[in-house]
Amino acid sequence: MLAILLISGFFSFGQNKKTQPNIIVFLVDDMGWQDTSVPFWTKVTDFNKRYHTPNMERLAREGMKFTNAYAMPVCTPSRVSLMTGVNAAHHRVTHWTSPDKDKNTDFADSTLNSVDWNINGFSPVAGIPHTFYGTPLPAILNQAGYYTIHSGKAHFGSAGTPGSDPKNLGFQVNIAGNEIGHPASYLGEKNYDNAKNGKPSRNAVPGLEAYHGTDVFLSDAITTEALKALEKPVNDKKPFFLYLAQYAVHVPLDADKRFMSKYLKAGLDSTEAKYAALIEGMDKSLGDVLNFLDDRKIADNTVILFMSDNGGLSLTPQRGGNAWTHNLPLKGGKGSVYEGGIREPMLIRWPGVVKPKSVADQYVIVEDFFPTILEIAGVKNQKIIQQIDGKSFLPILKNPSFKDENRELVWHHPNRWIPAEGPKIHFSSAFRKGDWKLIYDYRKGKLELYNLKNDIGEQNDLALTNPQKVKELALLFTKQLKKWDAQWPTYKQNRKVVPWPDEVN
Amino acid sequence: MLAILLISGFFSFGQNKKTQPNIIVFLVDDMGWQDTSVPFWTKVTDFNKRYHTPNMERLAREGMKFTNAYAMPVCTPSRVSLMTGVNAAHHRVTHWTSPDKDKNTDFADSTLNSVDWNINGFSPVAGIPHTFYGTPLPAILNQAGYYTIHSGKAHFGSAGTPGSDPKNLGFQVNIAGNEIGHPASYLGEKNYDNAKNGKPSRNAVPGLEAYHGTDVFLSDAITTEALKALEKPVNDKKPFFLYLAQYAVHVPLDADKRFMSKYLKAGLDSTEAKYAALIEGMDKSLGDVLNFLDDRKIADNTVILFMSDNGGLSLTPQRGGNAWTHNLPLKGGKGSVYEGGIREPMLIRWPGVVKPKSVADQYVIVEDFFPTILEIAGVKNQKIIQQIDGKSFLPILKNPSFKDENRELVWHHPNRWIPAEGPKIHFSSAFRKGDWKLIYDYRKGKLELYNLKNDIGEQNDLALTNPQKVKELALLFTKQLKKWDAQWPTYKQNRKVVPWPDEVN
Repeated sequence: MLAILLISGFFSFGQNKKTQPNIIVFLVDDMGWQDTSVPFWTKVTDFNKRYHTPNMERLAREGMKFTNAYAMPVCTPSRVSLMTGVNAAHHRVTHWTSPDKDKNTDFADSTLNSVDWNINGFSPVAGIPHTFYGTPLPAILNQAGYYTIHSGKAHFGSAGTPGSDPKNLGFQVNIAGNEIGHPASYLGEKNYDNAKNGKPSRNAVPGLEAYHGTDVFLSDAITTEALKALEKPVNDKKPFFLYLAQYAVHVPLDADKRFMSKYLKAGLDSTEAKYAALIEGMDKSLGDVLNFLDDRKIADNTVILFMSDNGGLSLTPQRGGNAWTHNLPLKGGKGSVYEGGIREPMLIRWPGVVKPKSVADQYVIVEDFFPTILEIAGVKNQKIIQQIDGKSFLPILKNPSFKDENRELVWHHPNRWIPAEGPKIHFSSAFRKGDWKLIYDYRKGKLELYNLKNDIGEQNDLALTNPQKVKELALLFTKQLKKWDAQWPTYKQNRKVVPWPDEVN
Repeated sequence: MLAILLISGFFSFGQNKKTQPNIIVFLVDDMGWQDTSVPFWTKVTDFNKRYHTPNMERLAREGMKFTNAYAMPVCTPSRVSLMTGVNAAHHRVTHWTSPDKDKNTDFADSTLNSVDWNINGFSPVAGIPHTFYGTPLPAILNQAGYYTIHSGKAHFGSAGTPGSDPKNLGFQVNIAGNEIGHPASYLGEKNYDNAKNGKPSRNAVPGLEAYHGTDVFLSDAITTEALKALEKPVNDKKPFFLYLAQYAVHVPLDADKRFMSKYLKAGLDSTEAKYAALIEGMDKSLGDVLNFLDDRKIADNTVILFMSDNGGLSLTPQRGGNAWTHNLPLKGGKGSVYEGGIREPMLIRWPGVVKPKSVADQYVIVEDFFPTILEIAGVKNQKIIQQIDGKSFLPILKNPSFKDENRELVWHHPNRWIPAEGPKIHFSSAFRKGDWKLIYDYRKGKLELYNLKNDIGEQNDLALTNPQKVKELALLFTKQLKKWDAQWPTYKQNRKVVPWPDEVN
């Protein structure tokens, strides 16, 4: 409602409805690059053997696999980028937003002060303190004639701000989404943690009362409801945009009993068995969507984009085994600007456009979804408040060997995520151009350089042996950050601004 | 305050303060009989080797071990029995109480209707619907001159009823206790799940704000605060009653990082490693209490009673490994009237009275704590509203070989605990006399008979081979239940009352 008021009159439409394909964004939460039986690396890993994701395999068989797809190291920044086409350094939602308004989720650091980032997230309405204001993707699609459905996790803005409600972003239907970033429970038996007649729970999943007291796992409930909601546009022969954002596979690792036994039988640690079941339950949801498209005979006119919002969580004791090993061969995990925290399993199927079994190695990033989807929908000349940083990857969809080695990617995270330390999980930013990746650790005031082509695991820091490349990238990196007026932390001791990458020697 | 209004004038005191020892009840939540390095069975088990509880070992060395101590199969019934001296069949709080008022926690069953049990728990005030009204132990002790402290989990009554606040039960100090039965988080980093400035969480631990944002594990915080609260009575040279009720080791199995590494190194499944660390963190709390008593030189005049409130949880996926194996050699676990659900690790130290390293095999039950503690405190001629079912075990403390084979114990659980089925976890009651145990499964209308001396694992049902013993025990069992006017479920189909044990052939 708010969003519609806001953007009405901004667009010129006139799309030919017949050329508008249906669009489904299937977004997973906290899923790592290796958490699937689809091999995204050059080798089939033990993780690829551990996980069972037959529907992702199907999507890879029938569509395109992106081996160098990226998101931000934590959740809300990626989601805001996807909804707005803007990089996190630019929209300033650089960290995950609390469900509670005006609450900074940054942990205190002894060396640096946090930046004044947009702690309330995204807002489709101007003038809301500590939010990034922009025109959201679903509102544009809705104005262009799409029936727009949100199902699952939203987490775009804090409670009490317009961004907390997907309906304010242009979604006509909202199933189970609000300001929360994870469910307190995935279990229907526990009413997804809603108290029946007591105090409301802080991370209870809203709006699925019909499943309370049943044994329906959350991943399944939001899928069933999403498919029910699709009946209307399908029957009305109207193009639809479905944003199906699984709460899975974020902690808590509640056991999805439909899939547990095989992993326990395989001898997996109990925590890891729950994780693997959560993955497979998510994949089952994807399969249900694909089957629905087949049943309704609309698969040929539907683009489905599969993505995750950040790297796999690799903290222990939340995960079994040893910390920072869950995304191998990648280094780090959720929270980190190393590859383990940002590289994502991305798959796209679009019959007649995307060649089956195709593989694209060109790097892309989450804000690219915005211009790509608008291009797929044929939306042109739209008036959009924000300046778009993403680039449409439609050329890649049409030609998997498309290459752009000059593309510059930026990850900006001037925040402290958790109390514990970990591989570049706090106050770190990164920059990629071609196969080169530069990483900046603000607290150490130190740059690292990696060649991802030879060293996907970021094991060999080439900063000392290749100072020329460091200098070249640091200049480009700094230029981009300054162009976006990116926020920069200050030292606790003297309140001075931390040096920019090109000021570090 | 309510409790004081209530009971003032009821007691005759005149205790000689010098003869009143300090009394500490150290109650653990959901701890099983084998969850300790202290062997309570005739053999040292693999579980005894797995867990590290050096302070329980110390207590066993310096005091008495009870090998046949019992509680109810779930939490609130045991706690109400401890506070009132009344058996669950008699106080009618036969199941765990919801934190929310007037909410029945029974799951629906297809065969039987639940009984109209006291779903709001215990109340120190008359006239509160669905509560058991009685005179609580701490109020009596307080009136007798004891300084009374509650720290940890209360869970005596639902929110909005007087029983929810330990201060209404006669505790002068309440640390972290209210209507909740488990914490949503044990982690100081998560503020024990209290939102800083947002919606309150349903199972947030109250009152430990000083530890929010720290890395202090809940088991430690409630111990530190309890010991701080003890300074006053120790300095005032006043006898104290400390009820230190650990939230541990109830789920969620948050990792107590102080103790995790050794269990992971030992190759334990990650879930079981967390459980073992939770156990050791609880034991550390016990050690801190023992050290405090040493430091203040009051150990000689302090009785410490260690107990758990029901058997160890043995559901998967909440626990690692296979369900119903976590209390072996005992059958079942929390929820069950088999030994795994009711037999508890119980230890008592009382220098000068209880002989070090002594072992008592006489069976005792949780309602016995009430008359025992009153006898230890020298409270006599007190006016108590309820009729006491427990028997003082002071004679056992003075003579570990004390035997009473004629004692009758009753476990009454006419409730359905969870959706899943498990070994006698729903609608089952039990009766023990001597080495014989009779179990009644209401839904099957069937009696089982075990000889615990020969068959602690309840593997050989002797009901068919010894019908005479079944008949004898069923008569005694029924007589006791009827004497207490115990509640009895009805059939869904015809609303008829399920047969009493002596009516089953």
